[in-house]
Amino acid sequence: MTDFPRAEYEARLETANRAMHANSLDAILLASEAEVRYFTGFRTQFWQSPTRPWFVILRRDQTPLAIIPEIGAELMARSDIAEIEAWPAPRPHDDGLSLLKDRLGNCQRLGVLMGHETTFRMPLNDVFELRAALPAEWIDATDIIRDLRMVKSDREIAYIRQICGIASQGFARVPEIANAGHSLSSVFREFKRMLLELGADDVPYLVGGVDHPSYDDVISPPDDRPLSNGQILMLDTGATLNGYFCDFDRNYAVGTPTKSAQRAYAKLYDATDAAMEMARPGVRACDLFAAMAKSMDTQNSDVGRFGHGLGMQLTEWPSLAAWDETIIRENMVLTLEPSIGVDGGGIMVTEENILITDGVPILLSTRAPKELPLL
Amino acid sequence: MTDFPRAEYEARLETANRAMHANSLDAILLASEAEVRYFTGFRTQFWQSPTRPWFVILRRDQTPLAIIPEIGAELMARSDIAEIEAWPAPRPHDDGLSLLKDRLGNCQRLGVLMGHETTFRMPLNDVFELRAALPAEWIDATDIIRDLRMVKSDREIAYIRQICGIASQGFARVPEIANAGHSLSSVFREFKRMLLELGADDVPYLVGGVDHPSYDDVISPPDDRPLSNGQILMLDTGATLNGYFCDFDRNYAVGTPTKSAQRAYAKLYDATDAAMEMARPGVRACDLFAAMAKSMDTQNSDVGRFGHGLGMQLTEWPSLAAWDETIIRENMVLTLEPSIGVDGGGIMVTEENILITDGVPILLSTRAPKELPLL
Repeated sequence: MTDFPRAEYEARLETANRAMHANSLDAILLASEAEVRYFTGFRTQFWQSPTRPWFVILRRDQTPLAIIPEIGAELMARSDIAEIEAWPAPRPHDDGLSLLKDRLGNCQRLGVLMGHETTFRMPLNDVFELRAALPAEWIDATDIIRDLRMVKSDREIAYIRQICGIASQGFARVPEIANAGHSLSSVFREFKRMLLELGADDVPYLVGGVDHPSYDDVISPPDDRPLSNGQILMLDTGATLNGYFCDFDRNYAVGTPTKSAQRAYAKLYDATDAAMEMARPGVRACDLFAAMAKSMDTQNSDVGRFGHGLGMQLTEWPSLAAWDETIIRENMVLTLEPSIGVDGGGIMVTEENILITDGVPILLSTRAPKELPLL
Repeated sequence: MTDFPRAEYEARLETANRAMHANSLDAILLASEAEVRYFTGFRTQFWQSPTRPWFVILRRDQTPLAIIPEIGAELMARSDIAEIEAWPAPRPHDDGLSLLKDRLGNCQRLGVLMGHETTFRMPLNDVFELRAALPAEWIDATDIIRDLRMVKSDREIAYIRQICGIASQGFARVPEIANAGHSLSSVFREFKRMLLELGADDVPYLVGGVDHPSYDDVISPPDDRPLSNGQILMLDTGATLNGYFCDFDRNYAVGTPTKSAQRAYAKLYDATDAAMEMARPGVRACDLFAAMAKSMDTQNSDVGRFGHGLGMQLTEWPSLAAWDETIIRENMVLTLEPSIGVDGGGIMVTEENILITDGVPILLSTRAPKELPLL
């Protein structure tokens, strides 16, 4: 339980406590991996199994309470969480439900993450039963947690910077593993192995595409067709270190790129510059979107946005999108991810990870070269 | 979209259709990765991001309808899903909600996965709004989907067998990467790299433990302390191939194991034999639990069960637990995962993956050696 010093968890809890006062909440009920980890340091692969739910209750002016399966009680006890209630999960007829009912019975206003980009990780039967059984009004606590998590601490930034550095080294070595004749699936496999070798804990996310004059499909699993001259290859990875993600991509020309691919790449590079220039505390997420759209002379994006927050999750608030008026603040970590259509077919996406400071933003990813790198 | 032939998706949809008739459901609304993939073949890493929800509606006596973010529409169109409605996600004020309201407006009885081991992947605000807006009664469809997914097709079994084979090869090579002096974190890293090299698509799950006379903690991330003589090392992996998991572990003695560790290992081996002997169609999941408990002369298990189903998810229904009366059927894939305390400290867990047949079960994992292997 050493991802962060005790003082950092205390500071997070204190900020949440102030928010509970400001919003007249008696408690906030957390059920998601990122939030439980954020407030307790409890980091485990056991969330990968859908079998067991895990809960933490932040209580106003009291220490937090963990309500978790017995299998995790000892690890949780090594955190600073003084109070832990455990049950022998899985126990389908009562998987934490009676404990939650009991411990939340006096709560009048209960904060729960119910908003955009949240999932409440508990079977709906139990959600409905808990909601009906508790006297509490359920209040959306998404904004409270979002405000807290969006601004990163120095240690969080250091982890993201480190995993961005590892991925940058990996991307620099892609020419060793990707050439005409290699398949996308072999490139994926070797790229993951390389990131692990370079020090990543895991590579939970790797997508990409390859086609001529550029790729169109960035969502499919990789296939075994060989790369060929004139294609553009893109790899986009979310690798992790100590539970923190990088999320950026790189484009490569297989052999000789088309002029249209080079033009698209240049436009994306300039769009990133435009966003970098204005990415300061005080501007809004939608302003960064608008700056990139204006630079590329496009109002559209297939993906609906040109970047997002980054940290404990691959994608976090805010969205760099026309509809997101979130004010950018110092120590936010963002991705700049403009995308554009390529004349002749396909799209192109570039992505960098940046840290907002009180001056110019700091690149956490080693900036992609100004000219399309060749394989 | 070639994980399964078209006929297999048609058969799955037909079985679901019969179940909708039997349960008087007009439709089943799916929002989870495994279920959407099971009925459409839609396989993508995009579920890793919490930003976008994805929905499929199974409609009684009609073709299914996908309601998904635009970024996935082209890939979904390559499936056999004829009807796709897409919206430019993320769109926080209406992330698929109005489409769902519109297309489910005539539904009277709506099936939704609400039971044990399910999560409905949609923000609770939207869940509550959808439930209030629809005239439909929400009926728990967990049993319907569970019954379908628990029995595997030949192709599903082939994928699981293949990834079990890859992990078996990896476990056989652990002596190359784990010895006194290596740390658990280095063993984790090298083991993941080896599984990728051997052909795994991914290694989303790897846990383990090491201690003397045996490990106690199987839930923490690995640390950098060196392995030392007299310890037991355990590695437990869920690697994937074509979206299907293996899930089994191996134990190794670092140098000379204690007598108590050897005794525990022998008991677990015998318990697995006892379960193998009775694992036939017609027995219940709880009978397998009881057979293992009786063999080890224990009624307790810290983990609450001695195995579970396996397939598209690391852990699936049923649970080999005292409370689970699920009837075992041919072509189920199960893990046998007995655990026991070790005299002198710690626990030991072994795990194998088996296929239920009409005769003796088939081991999909290469059975662990009868004697504790030494490093």
